[in-house]
Amino acid sequence: MGGDGLRDVVAGLDIGGTGTSVVLVDGERVVARQHGATPAGEGGPAMVAAAAGLVRSALRAAPGTRLAGAGVGAAGVVDPATGTVVAASDSFAGWAGFGLADALGDALGVPVAVENDVNAFALGEARSGAARGLADVLAVTLGTGVGGALVLGGNLYRGPSGAAGEIGHVAGFGDLPCTCGGRGHLETLASGRAVARAFERATGLAVPGARQVAELARAGDGDARRAFDDAAHAVGRAAVLVATLLDVTDVVVGGGVASAWDLLGPGIAASVRREPPVSGADVRVAPSALGREAVALGAATVAPAGALSLLG
Amino acid sequence: MGGDGLRDVVAGLDIGGTGTSVVLVDGERVVARQHGATPAGEGGPAMVAAAAGLVRSALRAAPGTRLAGAGVGAAGVVDPATGTVVAASDSFAGWAGFGLADALGDALGVPVAVENDVNAFALGEARSGAARGLADVLAVTLGTGVGGALVLGGNLYRGPSGAAGEIGHVAGFGDLPCTCGGRGHLETLASGRAVARAFERATGLAVPGARQVAELARAGDGDARRAFDDAAHAVGRAAVLVATLLDVTDVVVGGGVASAWDLLGPGIAASVRREPPVSGADVRVAPSALGREAVALGAATVAPAGALSLLG
Repeated sequence: MGGDGLRDVVAGLDIGGTGTSVVLVDGERVVARQHGATPAGEGGPAMVAAAAGLVRSALRAAPGTRLAGAGVGAAGVVDPATGTVVAASDSFAGWAGFGLADALGDALGVPVAVENDVNAFALGEARSGAARGLADVLAVTLGTGVGGALVLGGNLYRGPSGAAGEIGHVAGFGDLPCTCGGRGHLETLASGRAVARAFERATGLAVPGARQVAELARAGDGDARRAFDDAAHAVGRAAVLVATLLDVTDVVVGGGVASAWDLLGPGIAASVRREPPVSGADVRVAPSALGREAVALGAATVAPAGALSLLG
Repeated sequence: MGGDGLRDVVAGLDIGGTGTSVVLVDGERVVARQHGATPAGEGGPAMVAAAAGLVRSALRAAPGTRLAGAGVGAAGVVDPATGTVVAASDSFAGWAGFGLADALGDALGVPVAVENDVNAFALGEARSGAARGLADVLAVTLGTGVGGALVLGGNLYRGPSGAAGEIGHVAGFGDLPCTCGGRGHLETLASGRAVARAFERATGLAVPGARQVAELARAGDGDARRAFDDAAHAVGRAAVLVATLLDVTDVVVGGGVASAWDLLGPGIAASVRREPPVSGADVRVAPSALGREAVALGAATVAPAGALSLLG
């Protein structure tokens, strides 16, 4: 608490392709939350202005608090050291090369740290979600693509050059072409796009995405069911792969496809039972417990709050 | 150096199924080496007596030295905390459950540490071999089976329960049955046994092992060549898998099959070029530089020498 009686809070932001989520966190407690559209087509400054507006709305909803810092989970390749977006998908205009931490720091008047959104998801689930209290976790996000992040010994494992965790692009999962140019990657079976395409290949019918395939599967459609079964089997095999190589036996699965856990969970568990790791260890695969707020909550954990609150 | 003018050295031992190797190490320098048969069928005490005899021979060959400690690389599952062999193959009589560190410590009168032989191989190559000076390395041994060990951030990565590194039992490498009961593991394509079996399946001819297949491949036999090509492709894919998941881009390959590097190296390099990691990073796969002494040299690095030499 500052000398003026205000409580220091940090903001966690999730700037995604369609929406931006903000949580204000006081210690372990969320004291306010906001959600709005991301103006992804309008460039970095517009996205930052929208995000800063959501933070200010959240602060107004939590009287007696003062912002000490912010952490952002951003899609694409980010450089946590500089807070810059290094590479981003085409759906983000003017995002690659954008100095996100500096721009948001200027807008909010606090220090800002930036983290890749999948890493933030992993940190959120490990701090307060499905992997709460676990020091070693694989996090997998099944969205349009498949993302991954590793927490080892209680810390995010980035690898020597920051490229670690890409379970979505590990091969050995059939032979379908991947968006990255490779073949047989986990993503070709377990992403939302992959589930939709698998259904389309089997039926000749077009579907907008995995959500519609999930509805069909729940209504008893065998082809839709098989698309989810294949995704589940692949995720189970990826979990066993990580247990075999890293002895990491806890996996948290998030992303839009994971919201169909009724269709995925049993198949993942069956896959893990059928092909366990050579150690014989129990492999536990759980759905995200934080849902849409996982990235924002994880981002809040990287907010550089200490420095400013000492000055406050 | 002790007060009596003797130089402290540590012993590194490799107790393998057929032979036991000993090196005496003074700092970074090997001052003596010995090699003898392992009496693997005669039980733990006989194996320890033979190993201790080799250490004493080595000490006699290095006048002016005094033994301060020893490290052992042992096949099978070992518990480094207690220095006990937890599980071993049938070719070692009375080895599982044997208190190796205590027995060898009693025989030599110095503290002894025990490490799994593949971990010791990785430590040896990272300290003074093909991965010298590298903080992040995957080590793979292609012997009767396929072993693996990871050095991350300069340290052996054991995983939460000590089971990490088992690249030989990662799936996604075809569909052949593995010795462990699984299917499609790296070992089913890249072990010495796998290379021999692949040749036998293709030709209907029986061969004693991979060495004979290598000789046939060098003599121009296409089936023998293909058995090595398939092993090489699998090792290349395993290297890319680890680069993708862990951002570890240096791999050292040892074991008997790796001595046919003329047959493996080009295929591994081609595989890595054909299917690079999604990061685009360069993946370097090198053969062991320490050959038969890699395990003993790695074992020497874990020898608990500090304590005794302070007392000396």
